[in-house]
Amino acid sequence: ATAFRASEHQHIRYNPLQDEWVLVSAHRMKRPWQGQVEPSLLKTVPRHDPHNPLCPGATRANGEVNPHYDGTFLFDNDFPALQPDAPNPGPSDHPLFQAEAARGVCKVMCFHPWSDVTLPLMSVPEIRAVVDAWASVIEELGAQYPWVQIFENKGAMMGCSNPHPHCQVWASSFLPDVAQREERSQQAYQSQHGEPLLMEYGRQELLRKERLVLTSEHWLVLVPFWAVWPFQTLLLPRRHVRRLPELTSAERDDLASIMKKLLTKYDNLFETSFPYSMGWHGAPTGSEAGANWDHWQLHAHYYPPLLRSATVRKFMVGYEMLAQAQRDLTPEQMSSSYSGLSRVLVAVATA
Amino acid sequence: ATAFRASEHQHIRYNPLQDEWVLVSAHRMKRPWQGQVEPSLLKTVPRHDPHNPLCPGATRANGEVNPHYDGTFLFDNDFPALQPDAPNPGPSDHPLFQAEAARGVCKVMCFHPWSDVTLPLMSVPEIRAVVDAWASVIEELGAQYPWVQIFENKGAMMGCSNPHPHCQVWASSFLPDVAQREERSQQAYQSQHGEPLLMEYGRQELLRKERLVLTSEHWLVLVPFWAVWPFQTLLLPRRHVRRLPELTSAERDDLASIMKKLLTKYDNLFETSFPYSMGWHGAPTGSEAGANWDHWQLHAHYYPPLLRSATVRKFMVGYEMLAQAQRDLTPEQMSSSYSGLSRVLVAVATA
Ligand SMILES: O=P(O)(O)O[C@H]1O[C@H](CO)[C@@H](O)[C@H](O)[C@H]1O
Ligand SMILES: O=P(O)(O)O[C@H]1O[C@H](CO)[C@@H](O)[C@H](O)[C@H]1O
Repeated sequence: ATAFRASEHQHIRYNPLQDEWVLVSAHRMKRPWQGQVEPSLLKTVPRHDPHNPLCPGATRANGEVNPHYDGTFLFDNDFPALQPDAPNPGPSDHPLFQAEAARGVCKVMCFHPWSDVTLPLMSVPEIRAVVDAWASVIEELGAQYPWVQIFENKGAMMGCSNPHPHCQVWASSFLPDVAQREERSQQAYQSQHGEPLLMEYGRQELLRKERLVLTSEHWLVLVPFWAVWPFQTLLLPRRHVRRLPELTSAERDDLASIMKKLLTKYDNLFETSFPYSMGWHGAPTGSEAGANWDHWQLHAHYYPPLLRSATVRKFMVGYEMLAQAQRDLTPEQMSSSYSGLSRVLVAVATA
Repeated sequence: ATAFRASEHQHIRYNPLQDEWVLVSAHRMKRPWQGQVEPSLLKTVPRHDPHNPLCPGATRANGEVNPHYDGTFLFDNDFPALQPDAPNPGPSDHPLFQAEAARGVCKVMCFHPWSDVTLPLMSVPEIRAVVDAWASVIEELGAQYPWVQIFENKGAMMGCSNPHPHCQVWASSFLPDVAQREERSQQAYQSQHGEPLLMEYGRQELLRKERLVLTSEHWLVLVPFWAVWPFQTLLLPRRHVRRLPELTSAERDDLASIMKKLLTKYDNLFETSFPYSMGWHGAPTGSEAGANWDHWQLHAHYYPPLLRSATVRKFMVGYEMLAQAQRDLTPEQMSSSYSGLSRVLVAVATA
């Protein structure tokens, strides 16, 4: 019988954090691509555009005028998917027709006054200011809402409708689907093994050294064993930290610095402003914030869509939508050595 | 207190088939779109291209020459994500690092010898031939494999790399993630309520008449109460049918005809060859095919990406990837009357 080699033989892997499986078929990178090619991403964005509602001094859709901010700037989304006062749909009349109330707020956070920068182009102190603003908004909205989702859609390919560097914050009266799954998995792991799932996972990855991308005094970046997107990463604190506001000043500085390194690696990979969706997950907040959430470990997910070049992406369609996530290269192929990540990735992607 | 109106007030809905929630925030269609616009889809495709590996008489990547087929044509995918003989990864050494064996086959099925047609442009007898070919491939591969996933990625926007009308068939030695979720949900519903989930669901939708798109003697097309994609539909037989091969000749003819109607409506909606991913789900097959699968009801899902026009799509990014699916119009807004679907949809989409 042939010996199993992950980089040659398809197999399935389990995501214990989100209770999902992925089909890994590395040999598939060889197939030719004649499908959609994305428009080139190197548009020149003006540093300041008075008609861009995210710029300092610009007028927004609701008539409000932005201050001439010079750091981060947080404001209410003018087209919020969640509003604070939606009425309750009332009891459902049938188990197959269940609707429930959803209340919340949606905010937008500009990272910088200039439209022509991105996080990796910002200085470490500027990124540190973003980390502080994230921690504050979790505290502010987390006082009322059980889940505060910070996420950044970067690049037109990721549905981002404005090039100005920014993220969004959606706080909700309910635990969203993914949060529920992470809650169940982490809770179950803790009660079975007596420690947080992601603490043990981070430790194992440090020992195995097969999927590490970056390490620093306080943080780890790795390609998870169960990664779905080609260049997906997971950013974890080394210490047990449940929520962003708990981070010490040293941990925040170090986070700013490791984020800059990671995002610069991403940009260098295909020599493009690397598109992605990213977001933070931490213990639930709101009125239950005081309960025992020790099974939670703070983390950020990075989900970048590119597969082979700045213009060829991985499509999560067909089989992925109807059956199961599938990836065309192994997580290990992406990170055989973190110092050489870019070279390794390009070698794999152009093989 | 304000009375709840689904078309105005955000709420969350439960998908009992796949155990997932969706955030419905209909008021959000009003937001302006300055994001990515897809390339126009109206490329002229030649009827026959000797260099297209899907055409009759063409030579494929592995050197094989296609026959001069004049109906459907099934062949092995030259770049399969699943192969029949992959070795087993062996036992996992840690609960957070679980991998399992995956074996299978990937086939491609051409619907028609011409590259410049799509299913809605084909005649009903030609579509009926596709239905028969689907039933045969489920029988053939289902003899060995527990899951046979038929799916069609249509359009470059859906990652389709070849314009020739075709679908794919991936058979696997495991139940994929979505299949597992549908198995659990249908099994639980049957044991609690004594009948198949989707039989009761179809009956309820016929009574409620709020989300029907098309009905025929043997089939229903509806926008599910829990739809995620703007123009998502579910195609269901009226009779309790577990798998495609069980369909009678009359049911197959009627299926061909209702598919042609549905896909024509889709094409008319934005006056474009409507992109989508679609696929069939039926009871598991393989060595356990003889077990009791009465809780299963055959169905097809259609997941089209377009939101507002032929070139503006819904992006499932950021919040959707990190937290929960979100939609910008209610399922009911899409189907207030099935005879007027196109007009209703366009009115909503351009509002
Ligand atoms: O097999 P194709 O058409 O080349 O590829 C397409 O469908 C596959 C199955 O859904 C996906 O994994 C690919 O990402 C997509 O581009
Ligand atoms: O809010 P934006 O940037 O206009 O919109 C983008 O992010 C949202 C949250 O992930 C998604 O629902 C939209 O589909 C996407 O286009």
